[in-house]
Amino acid sequence: MLDETAKGVFTIAVTPFTPDGAVDWDSVDRMVDFYIAAGATGLTILGIMGEAGKLSAEESLGIVKRVVARSSVPIIVGVSAPGFAAMRALADQSMQAGAAGVMVAPPATLKTDGQIVTYYHNTAEVLGEAPFVLQDFPLVTDVVVPTSVILQIVEDCPTCVMLKHEDWPGLDKISALRAASGKGARRISILCGNGGQFLLEEMLRGADGAMTGFAYPEMMAQVVAAHDAGEIDRARDIFDAYMPMIRYEAQPGLGLAIRKYTLAQRGVIAHDTVRKPGGALSAATKAEVDALAARQAVRLAGLGL
Amino acid sequence: MLDETAKGVFTIAVTPFTPDGAVDWDSVDRMVDFYIAAGATGLTILGIMGEAGKLSAEESLGIVKRVVARSSVPIIVGVSAPGFAAMRALADQSMQAGAAGVMVAPPATLKTDGQIVTYYHNTAEVLGEAPFVLQDFPLVTDVVVPTSVILQIVEDCPTCVMLKHEDWPGLDKISALRAASGKGARRISILCGNGGQFLLEEMLRGADGAMTGFAYPEMMAQVVAAHDAGEIDRARDIFDAYMPMIRYEAQPGLGLAIRKYTLAQRGVIAHDTVRKPGGALSAATKAEVDALAARQAVRLAGLGL
Amino acid sequence: MLDETAKGVFTIAVTPFTPDGAVDWDSVDRMVDFYIAAGATGLTILGIMGEAGKLSAEESLGIVKRVVARSSVPIIVGVSAPGFAAMRALADQSMQAGAAGVMVAPPATLKTDGQIVTYYHNTAEVLGEAPFVLQDFPLVTDVVVPTSVILQIVEDCPTCVMLKHEDWPGLDKISALRAASGKGARRISILCGNGGQFLLEEMLRGADGAMTGFAYPEMMAQVVAAHDAGEIDRARDIFDAYMPMIRYEAQPGLGLAIRKYTLAQRGVIAHDTVRKPGGALSAATKAEVDALAARQAVRLAGLGL
Amino acid sequence: MLDETAKGVFTIAVTPFTPDGAVDWDSVDRMVDFYIAAGATGLTILGIMGEAGKLSAEESLGIVKRVVARSSVPIIVGVSAPGFAAMRALADQSMQAGAAGVMVAPPATLKTDGQIVTYYHNTAEVLGEAPFVLQDFPLVTDVVVPTSVILQIVEDCPTCVMLKHEDWPGLDKISALRAASGKGARRISILCGNGGQFLLEEMLRGADGAMTGFAYPEMMAQVVAAHDAGEIDRARDIFDAYMPMIRYEAQPGLGLAIRKYTLAQRGVIAHDTVRKPGGALSAATKAEVDALAARQAVRLAGLGL
Repeated sequence: MLDETAKGVFTIAVTPFTPDGAVDWDSVDRMVDFYIAAGATGLTILGIMGEAGKLSAEESLGIVKRVVARSSVPIIVGVSAPGFAAMRALADQSMQAGAAGVMVAPPATLKTDGQIVTYYHNTAEVLGEAPFVLQDFPLVTDVVVPTSVILQIVEDCPTCVMLKHEDWPGLDKISALRAASGKGARRISILCGNGGQFLLEEMLRGADGAMTGFAYPEMMAQVVAAHDAGEIDRARDIFDAYMPMIRYEAQPGLGLAIRKYTLAQRGVIAHDTVRKPGGALSAATKAEVDALAARQAVRLAGLGL
Repeated sequence: MLDETAKGVFTIAVTPFTPDGAVDWDSVDRMVDFYIAAGATGLTILGIMGEAGKLSAEESLGIVKRVVARSSVPIIVGVSAPGFAAMRALADQSMQAGAAGVMVAPPATLKTDGQIVTYYHNTAEVLGEAPFVLQDFPLVTDVVVPTSVILQIVEDCPTCVMLKHEDWPGLDKISALRAASGKGARRISILCGNGGQFLLEEMLRGADGAMTGFAYPEMMAQVVAAHDAGEIDRARDIFDAYMPMIRYEAQPGLGLAIRKYTLAQRGVIAHDTVRKPGGALSAATKAEVDALAARQAVRLAGLGL
Repeated sequence: MLDETAKGVFTIAVTPFTPDGAVDWDSVDRMVDFYIAAGATGLTILGIMGEAGKLSAEESLGIVKRVVARSSVPIIVGVSAPGFAAMRALADQSMQAGAAGVMVAPPATLKTDGQIVTYYHNTAEVLGEAPFVLQDFPLVTDVVVPTSVILQIVEDCPTCVMLKHEDWPGLDKISALRAASGKGARRISILCGNGGQFLLEEMLRGADGAMTGFAYPEMMAQVVAAHDAGEIDRARDIFDAYMPMIRYEAQPGLGLAIRKYTLAQRGVIAHDTVRKPGGALSAATKAEVDALAARQAVRLAGLGL
Repeated sequence: MLDETAKGVFTIAVTPFTPDGAVDWDSVDRMVDFYIAAGATGLTILGIMGEAGKLSAEESLGIVKRVVARSSVPIIVGVSAPGFAAMRALADQSMQAGAAGVMVAPPATLKTDGQIVTYYHNTAEVLGEAPFVLQDFPLVTDVVVPTSVILQIVEDCPTCVMLKHEDWPGLDKISALRAASGKGARRISILCGNGGQFLLEEMLRGADGAMTGFAYPEMMAQVVAAHDAGEIDRARDIFDAYMPMIRYEAQPGLGLAIRKYTLAQRGVIAHDTVRKPGGALSAATKAEVDALAARQAVRLAGLGL
């Protein structure tokens, strides 16, 4: 079961499809193996980048079972839903299938501090004993969650054990949360998203690792490891080597297709198919990714990686 | 099967719950009977006001089957979903269960004219032969659908047979659509929502009836009937008699709870329970509804109704 | 100077233009006289319905001076602006010209409770001694202001003397604010907007009157007077008589053009010109307004009005 | 006068303030000199990053006059305003003061393709002979402008001579616009924003340069020069050297304060003051900027810069 001590790299998994849009189960297995080999200490499935919204209820459950069966590391399942009945159904099924916890993003209808707190009170009640991750991703959810609200949820809901941090800008928020836990607030795990764009700064502010899906997940493992070993300059060298690609993949909307293209190029998944709505990359975009990858490889070789 | 000739009153059905939040199946049956007795020529279930987003996939299908089995009039099922896989699953199951058609609202992520058109191209492909209703409800969806876009969808998608019109303001849009069909565009059915606030003006602009869930659905049937009989003054008298209540029920967010309260007061459903998020009415609100209902009854008696 | 005891009807004034879009100064004078004759206890200018955003700084100041010079009742000036420098400039000039107070709506960039409170702290500092009205109008501003935030602002900012209430739904908010002042919170004036759609219910919940621009401002004065005299049934009769028109004028976007059309029909302003963006009424819309007005006149005659 | 041939680097200028929030005129002069020395072929003032919305009308005009008087390169003035009267006033005054053109972003109220086109028709009419820049910045404006809409505006409005491109993702949009001008559409200048995050890719897609305010504007001049000289590898080396800082400064909301901090550190402006709302940097943030700057300096030295 997931708890507040979780750290390292929980990779956000894509959902591989065949060219006709069906779930590509063989690629699911290969992807799980790849992520773990790249240093994942956990996996998060059915998140926004897992195209969760585009799956039927049956497909979602199928993926949970497949990944849990294959994985040697804990699995977190995204269970955000328009309503609590659907959330409860997927959460219960996932926990029964062996997931370590679930993740919930706030719906766009929430406007005030009090509405957000109430929503997570309801969420915690619906989820029962399942530990959950609060996903704070305003760029996509359009819900701004103040630090005080996160702290309130942490105080009120013992099953909230982790923050998926991807507010932007969000570095001072990490500092504020850590300062609060220094003064007695329960300390939960903070894993950071945003494609890894601020990973090193986030670690230095007190984060416990990354939860994101950059197509070179070894970057996250390497940066976190170097940071944890106190080798900050080394961490910066690695981080900077990947930076042009991190930036490029972080383009909203397009990012998932870039990520799948790279994973397919790397042989992890068989196809770079994205379900509709969501299109294929242009030839020019693919060429840009290729050029960035080639230069990145040279820089990494220079670092002995 | 639903087609472009649909007219009259398609009542938007609520989803009745017991006080503990379970679906209240007996009330479902009673509600179907009540709506038909009140003049419904069709029913629309699992819409926004049917709390569709708060139901599990299993519950949704159960309601479809129950209502179809009970009803003597055609049933439209709301199948709006975050993605096409879930939409397809519910639509296929609904049509197999005997629904007459389905309804799809645009997701809030659509920003441009072209994106909306493409979304409905995809929708039509996903739905196959099932006739569908385009729901145009910007106040809730945050997607503004220009007349030209509706006409493009109508031209491109033969299975789009109806517009659920609830743009606000939207009267000139009805006139524009009817002018276009006068010049050769395919004429689809236009049924109007917005709680019936503009029903008479909508009919006079060329709408074919109402698709909304005002808790006195006989109002819609009476206004439409008077209009169709050419008794416009009579239609206005009836419409005005209900106006204070129509206005009061149209309060967003609160409206559903008011509607359920009234239906419970009228003995149609057993409980006025709204699933979370969505709260109970305050005592002051209930008193206001009661006061409006009492005066309304007097006015209606004066009209011989 | 405006203070917490303000009550009655503060009419939201339009800004009259000539057909070529210039400010129509003669109509400004006539309009001021008309509003006061219709029972206004104050006027609010340069609000959203005053097309404030479409005026140059010079025009805005000219209107303030003209209205203040003409009026025998206190004037509130809308000074909402993208930034504090422009707000301060217009507020200072307005107060020097003899305005009684100013009104400030929250900018759409505010997302959290704390951001709203801070914004009004800054506002109060910028405005100095000028009393101000907090405009709570989520449908237009897209900022939801919880009751607790209003109470915090009232506590922190002694110059906040009035709430322009137009949350929707908002009746329970009035009750909550009045309950709080019953328990020791400073009691400020609450005048209600939303085109008067809920005026009677608002008065019964504890509001002090109306601040809105319905084109028959005598309705507000009559309803408030009947309410204050304890003649609630009389107030309802009057309110209901205007209801179909209130509802029709409340159409967002279109409402201002309808209001100006009616004011021009009534001889108050010379032209119904709305500045771009914002178009002319269709012939069908004008006919609908005319039909509503004719029936309204009959109902009012029946009430001896 | 600005025309379609504009290229190179139009730096987005900040507005320097003294610690008490007044415009710091000496810093304005020094900043103009610095930008030009750093390779600017033009300057853009009163943009979003120039805190235009926080200035009074009087201050805005003062800045225009000061910058025009000081500068040896063409000046573009941001004239976006809530309404056309204010836009016209500032545009007319700016052109009379010697500006080369103006820039207009779409207001957030625009929802459909047709509304955007109409808005720019009105804009062109209001601006008269003044050449204008269409600012396409959805992350801030919340208005998505399709390529087809840009092309329509370019066709309809001869005075639209430039696109400030900062859609995100937006690279394929540049390609589409250039493909269209290859097929007969009028070719306008495309200068790119977004803090320079994609500058090299943008140039390779057909952009004419940059219009952004990264605190090391020499980066833009160097990358554009290397690109124009066909030295793409050199351009990539320079671009990558700045990348960690580009990424860091691109944090929305925070970015302006970071930019001003760096400009103050570099001695360009006397103070890093940002007007309210908009706060000071935390000590941790300043330390992060310092660390990034130190490493950047080493990398640039390695490139002989």
